[in-house]
Amino acid sequence: MDERLQDLRVNSERLRRDFNQLARIGATMEGGVHRPALSEAHLAARAWFCERIQRDGFTCRVDGAGNHSAVLSCGPEGAATLLLGSHLDSVPHGGRFDGPLGVLAALETLRVVQETGTKLPVHLEAIDFTDEEGTLVGELGSAALAGSLSEKELAEPRGGRPALEEGLARAGLTERGILSAKRQPETLLGYLELHIEQGKRLLEVGAQIGVVTSIVGIGSCRLRFIGRADHAGTTPADERLDAAMGASAFALAAHQELLNFPGCTVNIGDMRFAPGAFNIVPAEVTVSLEYRAPDPAELTRLETALLARAGAAAVQHGLALEVEPAGRVEPALMSQQAQTAIEAAARSLGLRHLPLSSLAGHDGQALAAICPVGMVFVPSQDGASHSPREYTRWEDCRNGANVLLQAAIRWATGQLG
Amino acid sequence: MDERLQDLRVNSERLRRDFNQLARIGATMEGGVHRPALSEAHLAARAWFCERIQRDGFTCRVDGAGNHSAVLSCGPEGAATLLLGSHLDSVPHGGRFDGPLGVLAALETLRVVQETGTKLPVHLEAIDFTDEEGTLVGELGSAALAGSLSEKELAEPRGGRPALEEGLARAGLTERGILSAKRQPETLLGYLELHIEQGKRLLEVGAQIGVVTSIVGIGSCRLRFIGRADHAGTTPADERLDAAMGASAFALAAHQELLNFPGCTVNIGDMRFAPGAFNIVPAEVTVSLEYRAPDPAELTRLETALLARAGAAAVQHGLALEVEPAGRVEPALMSQQAQTAIEAAARSLGLRHLPLSSLAGHDGQALAAICPVGMVFVPSQDGASHSPREYTRWEDCRNGANVLLQAAIRWATGQLG
Repeated sequence: MDERLQDLRVNSERLRRDFNQLARIGATMEGGVHRPALSEAHLAARAWFCERIQRDGFTCRVDGAGNHSAVLSCGPEGAATLLLGSHLDSVPHGGRFDGPLGVLAALETLRVVQETGTKLPVHLEAIDFTDEEGTLVGELGSAALAGSLSEKELAEPRGGRPALEEGLARAGLTERGILSAKRQPETLLGYLELHIEQGKRLLEVGAQIGVVTSIVGIGSCRLRFIGRADHAGTTPADERLDAAMGASAFALAAHQELLNFPGCTVNIGDMRFAPGAFNIVPAEVTVSLEYRAPDPAELTRLETALLARAGAAAVQHGLALEVEPAGRVEPALMSQQAQTAIEAAARSLGLRHLPLSSLAGHDGQALAAICPVGMVFVPSQDGASHSPREYTRWEDCRNGANVLLQAAIRWATGQLG
Repeated sequence: MDERLQDLRVNSERLRRDFNQLARIGATMEGGVHRPALSEAHLAARAWFCERIQRDGFTCRVDGAGNHSAVLSCGPEGAATLLLGSHLDSVPHGGRFDGPLGVLAALETLRVVQETGTKLPVHLEAIDFTDEEGTLVGELGSAALAGSLSEKELAEPRGGRPALEEGLARAGLTERGILSAKRQPETLLGYLELHIEQGKRLLEVGAQIGVVTSIVGIGSCRLRFIGRADHAGTTPADERLDAAMGASAFALAAHQELLNFPGCTVNIGDMRFAPGAFNIVPAEVTVSLEYRAPDPAELTRLETALLARAGAAAVQHGLALEVEPAGRVEPALMSQQAQTAIEAAARSLGLRHLPLSSLAGHDGQALAAICPVGMVFVPSQDGASHSPREYTRWEDCRNGANVLLQAAIRWATGQLG
């Protein structure tokens, strides 16, 4: 590859300043950020990003789904675009690295290419996707861009319809606008994202860069165990239809079932009790269940096994069970070309790299339906994630940004070696 | 006993009209009522009661704790008062009988005594106590009247401080006023209440009237299982500190422990998850636990055993455990004199009666600290309680009201035989 291109590096101090500034928006006492999708704090982060884009001399593009991009027309007229990016929303009371690192490294990549007057065969775009984390719908912006978002998903969103309506109103977005954000596959070369690993596999083998091979599939549903409200003092144990018993028995059984599915995960993230009083036997408990598997057939087998466990727990305690699907994202294979570009970039930078699958969901899953996708991981200290304890050493952040820059140039120029 | 007094009966149709009118206030689609203490619906029920009192020509007395009474000065000047009553608040989405039957039967008793120009050695008062059900504090009005309510209970109420403050503001009550509602023991002959059984023991033996011998003791606390928020996809099961696992294991263990405590009950009425997202391992689960036992020593033994189970569940799943007491009401023995009066009344009315303990809490527990207390039970169909399915046949309601009238007269006159 062209030596001049091979020597390009990100400006680590500039990137770090941006990172620290952004982390102050929606900062929490615990050292993380609280920026659920389309909350005031999230919109403030986006406003900051847009201002930064314009100050750097790029065009700020906002589409109907609220995705924000810096656009650099560094390719010939009519050329396709290589998308680089991540997201600025967080889970409730999350960390500072999950999302922002990838968005800012993408912007820094555009700055380096622009400053050096580098011409590429494609345009570059640094994009911040809407609602990756799923407090509203999940991968909302990327699915809208891929054209795979359905009206049904908007009608019955994972975070509830009122939260979605409130968020859209706050951001000035409309459902029609979201569905209009679709882009044509031929206009896209691909999508490349830098992200923290959110696990400990890189640290455990002493690798500095993860080359993602696939992104895990995720299913989720609400399980409603339905019993009967009764007086908690006067109803003997054997005459109760106690929804708490079914839900609790299921929670333990689900984790037991997981032993039959190595490499998969399950989570009981929430339970809601009704009526929820000290002195009333709970009539209903609604359980938020999520499960993940690396391939589609195993995801279906895991789902079937978990629902069987839920049914058994309900029967055992005399309860009815209602199952309401709350989303399914298929596992996605990463592009071979992208993986080769990332490996070459890591090698040229002298960084130890490891191929690994992503156990977390990412916007790349939605984009994989319309273009090749690649992902770069950097190590997470203690593997902490979706938590204020989330932390990646700055040295690793810088390495990841340089790999993103170098892999993007290699992929864009087709000089993978 | 004086034959003229022995022949007195309630006006069943008038009582029934009142009952049906009152049941329309806060009525739910399911056929019950939703009148949590000091809610709009509850205050509307109290306004209706106050109007009814005045229309019947009684004085409506409202004390600093919001207790509403009809006062009938049928005794000599300076005589003590026999309190009759119950409560007009309900559990969330509760039934029509729990509370209102006792308040209206008390008012009907006063009407019969007034209409017949009956003179007694004591005055009569039909009282509606504030917050018997405990959506705010629990037995708030009766404890205030007994002078046993502490500032601490008001500072850390079972239903949360915001709910209490909101309710007090809505009702125009103040904490100072509540603590001023105390009455002197020497001014009270005793307290007598008609209530539905909320269980199936009367029906099972074919009895029409229950003569309550004691009221169960109730302890409650909030158990906070504290783990760690982590990414639900990337954190392996054996590295999680999953609060859902501790709370679920405890729920099952608590019911297991109950097998060692026959005649006692336990209830897991609510669990609150934080942060409560599909894709985050829950960091905290707060469990609302309530337990009941017929005598104080057993209540303490049960509490100790349950907390040991909670501690074991926390340790097993690597969690911390915080225990926050949420109230304790001691078991209360019913007055022998009151029991004799109720038995004699039932016998004179030709009703089959059964002595039994109350497994539900009642205002009589708080009042037992300052005066003799008695309770009359009538059968609950299916034993349903704290539920819209709560139902007592009108014939049983009428029988109960006649027993209340006759027992009150017997107790008031001292003619128990």
